[in-house]
Amino acid sequence: VDNQENNQRGAAQDERLRSRPIGVFDSGLGGLTVVGELLSALAGETIVYLGDSARVPYGIKSLETVRRFAREDAAFLMQFEPKMLVVACNTASAAAIDCLRGSMPVEVVDVIGPGAAAAVAATDGMIGVIATEATIKSGAYQREIQKLSPGREVVAAACPLLVPIVEEGRAEDDPIVLHVLGDYLRELQRCRPGTLILGCTHYPLLQRAIGKLMGPSVTLVSSGAAAAGEVRRRLSERNLASERKNGGELRCFTTDNKERFAELGQRFLDGSGARIHSVQYVGTDELEKPRSQTAN
Amino acid sequence: VDNQENNQRGAAQDERLRSRPIGVFDSGLGGLTVVGELLSALAGETIVYLGDSARVPYGIKSLETVRRFAREDAAFLMQFEPKMLVVACNTASAAAIDCLRGSMPVEVVDVIGPGAAAAVAATDGMIGVIATEATIKSGAYQREIQKLSPGREVVAAACPLLVPIVEEGRAEDDPIVLHVLGDYLRELQRCRPGTLILGCTHYPLLQRAIGKLMGPSVTLVSSGAAAAGEVRRRLSERNLASERKNGGELRCFTTDNKERFAELGQRFLDGSGARIHSVQYVGTDELEKPRSQTAN
Repeated sequence: VDNQENNQRGAAQDERLRSRPIGVFDSGLGGLTVVGELLSALAGETIVYLGDSARVPYGIKSLETVRRFAREDAAFLMQFEPKMLVVACNTASAAAIDCLRGSMPVEVVDVIGPGAAAAVAATDGMIGVIATEATIKSGAYQREIQKLSPGREVVAAACPLLVPIVEEGRAEDDPIVLHVLGDYLRELQRCRPGTLILGCTHYPLLQRAIGKLMGPSVTLVSSGAAAAGEVRRRLSERNLASERKNGGELRCFTTDNKERFAELGQRFLDGSGARIHSVQYVGTDELEKPRSQTAN
Repeated sequence: VDNQENNQRGAAQDERLRSRPIGVFDSGLGGLTVVGELLSALAGETIVYLGDSARVPYGIKSLETVRRFAREDAAFLMQFEPKMLVVACNTASAAAIDCLRGSMPVEVVDVIGPGAAAAVAATDGMIGVIATEATIKSGAYQREIQKLSPGREVVAAACPLLVPIVEEGRAEDDPIVLHVLGDYLRELQRCRPGTLILGCTHYPLLQRAIGKLMGPSVTLVSSGAAAAGEVRRRLSERNLASERKNGGELRCFTTDNKERFAELGQRFLDGSGARIHSVQYVGTDELEKPRSQTAN
């Protein structure tokens, strides 16, 4: 009888664990492309998303500042007792993944490791990376690729204007978009890598234009999609996936205006079928308060 | 004897007041163009500058968030007991000038009032304004111009990509810069205003290219230069100008990496002869701490 009770108790506890949310944070709206991939891959999960729109973008800031922001974002999400934490922002992944893995009491998935692995799997040839200035400067993609495939040639290009261009809402076939992309991709077009990593959550919104400029021989890898696959694999391995097959929920927090978040954010979810229903405001002054109980 | 003593005491007090610094804040580096104008106009003054590079840009954020940042920036500068406070950022001026004038125990000069006045004085015709999305949406320039010259026609254009373009360090004759400017200025070229207000501190770095596209009949007004003139006028009216005619000092604070600030900031001072010598770091977590004693 004791054994049966223990089993029941264990099963109830497992179920409670499985029904916990996945925490996802990003510098702003871009990480919603990762949420779209997550909800496509794991339609029954609950996701709590924090977009730090008041301090966006991270990609033009120093790694130590990004690291502090990332720690604060992650600490905020811990109050929801997530079963897994996803760093949807490439810059935050590049700056802070080791620091987060060392300090958060939950498994942390980033976008750079999975993106690099997907690229290495997709080609034996040269790998191209486009990302923000901070991500490229950090050398995180280059290091991850070398770890998985020593000696692999990597060509990296920082593309600082692409985030503001996407946030401005320009269409992919806008002449300015094509002009700027042509400028950033010139060297990569010359090198003809086997794969090009879209190393920023905003870039999937320019995927068609980038694909056209690079030509059909170059496979585009979206780090966000790769990270969603990694989350699914790990949840399943640890028997942590939700028992629901659909009816997942998306709960959003933003550090800036919530109406603006809802209005501009939907574009980043298009294609996934997910919708933004619930957005709450949380001030950066809240995030920056010491949070010893919740965070540790 | 008493009277003489009082006079001496009064004179010493005045001298102490005059030797106080001018506090200047901005969302990042752009406000250094205003500092350049200030140090050219007032070569003996000490300036304490705060650039909020960790949260830059303000121009794509909501007015309530910008208002909070501006209050924190201003409160930080109050510890230096400035004789005047200059809001060098157009977006912060648009969002927060009334709130700052109502809460800071010191005279506050913004860039929008002086910019609008300079434009009204420069032309009897239509006035054009280019600025960030938040500044244009706030309607602050339009309102200021109507106050000074009721019924005056105003054409305003938001130019979200110009700040990241300047921060990327592109040259004024870069084909992408000309393409983007041509796109934003198309409607203004058609309207042929008498004056065009450069309503963002970054835009003076594109002044030559803008001037070429608008043609010689359009007078460009830099709000930063107009604000520097306003500061000089007010200091002189209140007998608060420094007694030194040169040897002014620039002391900088940044919320992001200080080496990066010094390296990238110098470009914004070029032409003024001023140099960045001293930069200190102050975290946004410091700024966001309640500061009731210093601020009020």
